[in-house]
Formats: sequence, structure tokens, C-alpha cells
Amino acid sequence: MRYTKIAAIFADSQELSGQEVQIGGWAKTIRDLKTFGFIELNDGSCFKNLQVVFSTEIVANYKEIASQNVGAALEIVGTVVLTPDAKQPLELQAKTVVVAGASSPEYPLQKKRHGVEFLRTIQHLRPRTNLYSATFRVRSVAAMAIHEFFQQKGFTYVHTPIITASDCEGAGEMFRVTTLDPKNPPLLENGDVDYSQDFFGKAANLTVSGQLNAENFAMAFGDVYTFGPTFRAENSNTARHAAEFWMIEPEMAFTDLAGDMDIAEAMIKFIIKRTMERCPDDLAFFNSFVDKGLLERLENVANSDFGRVSYTEAVEILKKNNANFDYPVEWGSDLQTEHERYLTEQVYKKPVFVTDYPKEIKAFYMRLNDDGKTVAATDCLVPGIGEIIGGSQREERLDVLESRIREMGMTTEDYWWYLDLRRYGGCKHAGFGLGFERMVMYLTGVANIRDVLPHPRTVGNADF
Amino acid sequence: MRYTKIAAIFADSQELSGQEVQIGGWAKTIRDLKTFGFIELNDGSCFKNLQVVFSTEIVANYKEIASQNVGAALEIVGTVVLTPDAKQPLELQAKTVVVAGASSPEYPLQKKRHGVEFLRTIQHLRPRTNLYSATFRVRSVAAMAIHEFFQQKGFTYVHTPIITASDCEGAGEMFRVTTLDPKNPPLLENGDVDYSQDFFGKAANLTVSGQLNAENFAMAFGDVYTFGPTFRAENSNTARHAAEFWMIEPEMAFTDLAGDMDIAEAMIKFIIKRTMERCPDDLAFFNSFVDKGLLERLENVANSDFGRVSYTEAVEILKKNNANFDYPVEWGSDLQTEHERYLTEQVYKKPVFVTDYPKEIKAFYMRLNDDGKTVAATDCLVPGIGEIIGGSQREERLDVLESRIREMGMTTEDYWWYLDLRRYGGCKHAGFGLGFERMVMYLTGVANIRDVLPHPRTVGNADF
Repeated sequence: MRYTKIAAIFADSQELSGQEVQIGGWAKTIRDLKTFGFIELNDGSCFKNLQVVFSTEIVANYKEIASQNVGAALEIVGTVVLTPDAKQPLELQAKTVVVAGASSPEYPLQKKRHGVEFLRTIQHLRPRTNLYSATFRVRSVAAMAIHEFFQQKGFTYVHTPIITASDCEGAGEMFRVTTLDPKNPPLLENGDVDYSQDFFGKAANLTVSGQLNAENFAMAFGDVYTFGPTFRAENSNTARHAAEFWMIEPEMAFTDLAGDMDIAEAMIKFIIKRTMERCPDDLAFFNSFVDKGLLERLENVANSDFGRVSYTEAVEILKKNNANFDYPVEWGSDLQTEHERYLTEQVYKKPVFVTDYPKEIKAFYMRLNDDGKTVAATDCLVPGIGEIIGGSQREERLDVLESRIREMGMTTEDYWWYLDLRRYGGCKHAGFGLGFERMVMYLTGVANIRDVLPHPRTVGNADF
Repeated sequence: MRYTKIAAIFADSQELSGQEVQIGGWAKTIRDLKTFGFIELNDGSCFKNLQVVFSTEIVANYKEIASQNVGAALEIVGTVVLTPDAKQPLELQAKTVVVAGASSPEYPLQKKRHGVEFLRTIQHLRPRTNLYSATFRVRSVAAMAIHEFFQQKGFTYVHTPIITASDCEGAGEMFRVTTLDPKNPPLLENGDVDYSQDFFGKAANLTVSGQLNAENFAMAFGDVYTFGPTFRAENSNTARHAAEFWMIEPEMAFTDLAGDMDIAEAMIKFIIKRTMERCPDDLAFFNSFVDKGLLERLENVANSDFGRVSYTEAVEILKKNNANFDYPVEWGSDLQTEHERYLTEQVYKKPVFVTDYPKEIKAFYMRLNDDGKTVAATDCLVPGIGEIIGGSQREERLDVLESRIREMGMTTEDYWWYLDLRRYGGCKHAGFGLGFERMVMYLTGVANIRDVLPHPRTVGNADF
């Protein structure tokens, strides 16, 4: 028999009133009032705890239960009783309580507030705290919302490869994947490592993006998306960077930059609405204890039309405020976080797409605009975070793409299959990448990426 | 404006009859009958092609279109016309046809049958063939079905880490993940590689299973699942092994082995039913051209109660047939594929769970049965494939688990956090792993794992 989840008891309280159910969960508090006691039980199915009443009259092992430590796992059979006059809408009157697993006074999560730094050292237990329970529930709901959004629109989900022998962006610090002897790798005559003896017969890395592979599939399925882990071996110890993170990358045939932005905007709104619908208690908690303006900001984003401004116009706007920036802006320079946040928080007061960046600061595969200077790229900036999405229309013209590859000092031979897509039935197409952790941070107000990843991997850290 | 998908035209043909739509896709055939012509267009949204009729009278660039090569990308505006008396239920009468991207006579997918070995060398184009289009559509639908199954049941989706410093099974060939200088790694005084200088401050590998991490979350959320890539650096060049593959690993608190099997059985049936519902044309294709008995087998599995037999009983059954096996069976030996297939195909003629294996041939974390000799493990065997799922109830008793770890020659210190789960509110719990590619092979009848992975990674192969 499967146990009833506490979320289901709250959701179906009318039907379950007076019914007997069996539940399992972890004690957040146990109060012993001698002839009866209260247990606040949480089973992770929702933010709310269930109040369980147990008494000496009915529960034979009353003393055993009353003396349990916080964190004990309990299996309880009892009757659902509505309590319209009490603080909580219902309680469970226990018939039997069984200790599935005791806890101890050494349990690190005693009833007091713990700092996130400490909680990161007990990643195996932190999901039982309010903060992380809510965060990882939102993470799961948001992930499902993304699948729902794309599948409803007829997108095909593609698992692009994690191990790759090519570097999508032609740059970026990558992790090497190898089975060679680490101490005595086989060497060529010239002293270089002989990767032909490695597992894949050549040097291999962890992917930084599934985009080029996704394009293979967009040229057959029209609309596709990837949703998987990506990796950066950047030595940057910030609150927004992790070495391993999840990314969503849709790729759409017969779509230009405007269509790309339409889908990105609709997706963000859909994720927000679904999360607000399905996690109201979690979001209320974040709004009260993590980020006071959260709910208002999410409502605002879900219901506003995102702004759209060209990079060139944005630079004109930003230059007027150059005196207040650490890095003054001028045409040709990449936008810094301070510029991005000023645009979205001060100027637009809502999310905004910046489009058509100088080609020098963007990747080779982005479509060259008719001005010959800019490319059909876009970054979506959101209040409180800055850049959350980067996308572009892809260069579909074979000759232009080949000369862009050469301009960047790369060789066309390395991209033979990517170029083939332009030789045989290419078409205008576009896509974008959403960093999933940034989205979860945005949904929760949690400020550090280490606190939205189940087990974060950062410089010097791969514990658990 | 977003284009109408061909799948939607077939699905909503009554409403769209007489309406003008815009579509985009790739020409599978073009026939020129001088004053009018036919295009079979596929856009990947469904197995079926759309027949497009274009004529000299209406389509001004008739000659340009009629002379296009197979594989050309076309954008077409036209009227949906029902054709109840024709072979196909409807056609599109073209108003305008635009060549989005031409193809060429060198296009490798000319209208003839190609072998899968050749098609593996053009992985960027093979999604446009019937076989791979159907396979990757089924893959996407099956992946979504898995999310739906678990989310409907209130499971929390957890992204367990890909990069790990621990080895779940205490064995297995793993890929090293590193940023150390491959030629001149830093060495300790004793000559060993100094991994403290590596990116994570210690040696790191690609995960072989998310299970131990998933248990952390099951002890907070009750029911969780992972769905992500896993890796094996095994030097095995078979049709069923890849170095990178996707795995689904649910983990359930307050659940024993019987409950574990209930969920596994319900999940497999759900995936099959959803795929049959959503991909009827794809499955009909597989049934006709890849595996004649496919539909019957899937129907049978979806509607049968899976068998359950203990390892000890299974060995008794198998021993009677020992004369016909390459490897005779006796109690204590691991079951080979020939034994597994004999059980499920000849004896049970349906899927069967084999349970309670000798502890010597199973992992340390599996719960020791009262007989002291076997563990509460299960493998689910299915006709045509053999093992598709491996699962177990986990050892929740701290002392038993510690002695099992020592028995296997491992150290308890390495598993401090895993053991903590038994110190602080542990409970009976269970889980299993489903190899996603095996499931897709099962759903399609496709016999080689290289043909169900978008870009397969195997020994000597990481192309694309």
C-alpha cells in the first residue's frame, strides 16, 4: 500500500474528512503535553507540515513517540479531522505511530535558523529544511513546466551529447574527459599526448552547449529543444557561476529573431504561471523570508509585454548614465551586469530583449545583419538578475558562414557537418539558451547558485 | 507568424478544410508532370508526409520548384483540401512555394534505402529518414511520458550531479574529468598525480548512477526521480552498450521491494500506452519494417501482469534447461542474457521480475534478507531484450550497512553522508534504474543502441 501524501490530504480534505489514512514523514517538532502530544510532520510533498495529535489513550507507545528527537522518520495511521476554528485547517488524530527510523540529539538540523554556508556542508540533509525543500520543489515544477511548454507546442525533445570532441563556441574553458593513464599518458614522437589511444580515439571534453547538435535535429523536426547538463571549467568563484549547470536550448526552423523572442517570452511567462499555480505556499515563503518583492515582480513579468530595444539604441540610453557606471559604455563594448540591470530595472522596469549586437562580441554562427556590422542576436534581461537568456538567428547562408568561421581563425573542415546543414535544405532558423539555475533563482529569489543546485559543483568543490 | 505543423493539419483536417495555411518542411520527393506537380513534404512533426499540389497556372516559379532536388527546404502557402476518394485523406493546393534552402544532387539521402551503418556516418542528416525520424519522435514522447508518470504521482524531479568524486557502485570503469595539464600533471613527492591541484581539488569522474544522491532527496521528499545522462568507460563494443546513455532512477521512501516492483511495472505500462497513443504511425512503421511482432508484444506487455519469481526458484527452472545453455546455471552464479531471455520469452512469455539474488553478486547498498544469503534486489526481464530494470530495497539498518561496506573492502568514512541518512530519520526505502535507451529499443524494435541515441558515444567514437 502506498502512503497518502500530505499534499493530497490538504488538497482533498473534504473527501478525506473522517477517513483513515497512512502517512510517512519526518518530525519537525514533537510536543509532549503528558496525556497527549503534537507532531508537526513533513513529507516533502508540500511546504506545509501536517499536525498530528497523539494521546496516551490510543497510542500504546506514547512514551516512545513523545521522546523522539527532531528528524525522526515516522509512519502514522490516523483519521483526518477538519478543524475550521483552529490555525491549521485540519489535523490527523493518530491511531498508530511507528518509528521507522529514530534521529538523535546530534541531528544537525535542530529547530533553529542555520546559515546557508553551514547548510552547504550538509547537502544530504539540507533538503529537509524549509528553504531547500521549497527551492527543490520549485525546481522540479519549473523543469516540468518547461517540458510541458515545448511538448504542447509540438517540439521534439532531443538529448544532445554530453561528451563532445568539438567546442561549440570556439572558446571557453572545457573539462577534459579521458581514460588515459594520468601519470604516464602515451606520447607522440613530438612529445604531445597521443589522444588516438584515449577512449574515443581523440581528445574529448564536456559540452558547453548542445546548440550545434540541436540544429541537426531542427533541420529534420522543425522545432526541437534540449534540456540537459552543460559545463564550464571557468575559475570564477561567484554567486552566479557553477561548473555544472542545466540548460534549455530550443532551436526552431523557419523562424527569425522576432519569432525567437516570441517563444522565449512565452516560455518565461509559462514557467512563472505554472510555478505560481502549483507552488503557492513555497512562493509565499520566499516572498516573506527570502525576497520581499518576489511575488509582485513575478506577477509583473507574467503580465507585461517584454521590451525590445536594439543594442545601438540601448547604448545611446546607457551613455546618458555613463557617469554612474564603473565601466562607461560605448558602441562596440560588451554590456556589463551593471548596464544590463540599469536597462531592465531603471529604464524599462520589466524584462527587455536587447538585439543586434556588434558581430565582434558575438559567436560565429549568429546571422550577419544587412549593415554588415551587427548580428541578429538577442539577450533577454530581467530585473533582479540581468541576462537570463541568450539567443540568435543562425547564419543559414553557406558562404557568409564560411567566411565568418575563417574570420574567427577557425577551420571550416572542423564544421563540415554543420556546414552541410546549409548545403542541403537549410532555412532561416533561430534558437536560444536559458540557464535553468538562473531561472530557478529568479523564481525563488535565492541569490546563490549553490543553493538551487542539488549538489553544486564549483571550483574546489565536488562533495557528495 | 508561426507555421502550421503537418501533424496539426492531419489532426484538425475538418476545421482546416478550405483554409489557407503556411507550412515549412523538406521535400522527400518532387514529381513534375509539366503543367502541375506533386511534392511530398515532411516537417518532422509526424511520420506522414503532406502531399502538395502545385501548378503552372498558380505557382509563378513552377519551373524553379519542379527542378528542386530531394532534401530542399520549402515554405509553402496553400489551401487544405480533403480528398476522401484518394489514397491520402487530404492535400495542400499550393498558392506560393518559396525555396528556403536548395539541396543538391550530392545530397546523401537520395530516394533509396540506406544501411544504418552508412547513416551513422551522417548523423546530422539521418534524422530526416523515416527510420530515425520515427525513432527520435518516439524517444521524445517516451521521455515526456516518464516525466508525466512520476509528476502525476507527486514525485520530485532531482538533477543529481554528473561530475562526482565518489563511485556509487564501488566499481565500474569511469571517465576522469580534469583540467590538469595532460602532458605534465603536477605530481606529489611519491610520484602520484597531485589531484589537489585539479579543478575540484580532488580526482573527479563522470557519474555511473545518481542513486546515492537521489537517496538524500528521498529522505526529504519521499518520492523522487532522476532522469539524466550516466557514463560507463567500458571497452565493450556491443549493440547494447554506449559510453553515454540516459537513465531514470526513482527512489521512494516508506517503500519495500514489492512496492518498488509495483511502480516499475506501472511505469513501463504507462510509457508503452502513451507511446501507442501518441505515435501510432511511427509504431506501425516499426511493426512493418523493423520488427514484425512489435505491436503485439507491446499490447501484450501493456495488458499483462508481470511475473514475479525469486532467483532461487528461477535457478531451479533454468537448471532443467542447462543442457541447452552455453553457460549452465547454478545457485550463486549471475544470470546471463541467454538465461534471462529464456525465462521471460520461453517460461513466462511476458515480463518477469526476478528477486532476492545472492548478496555476493549484488551491490553493497541492497537490503540483506533475513536468510543472511540473499538481498532484496530485483531485475525486470522483458521479452526481446532481457534485463531492462535493476532495482532493490536499500539497506536502512546502519550496523548492517556498515558491515556490508567493510565486507566489500570499502571504507565507511567515504560514505559518511550516506550513512548519516541511516542515523537521522532513515526508513525503509527502495528504487530502481531504467536504462532509457533500452526502453526506446524496446518501444521501436531498433536493435542497436547507436540508432536510438541522437549522437552515440562508444569506444573510438565521439563524432558530431
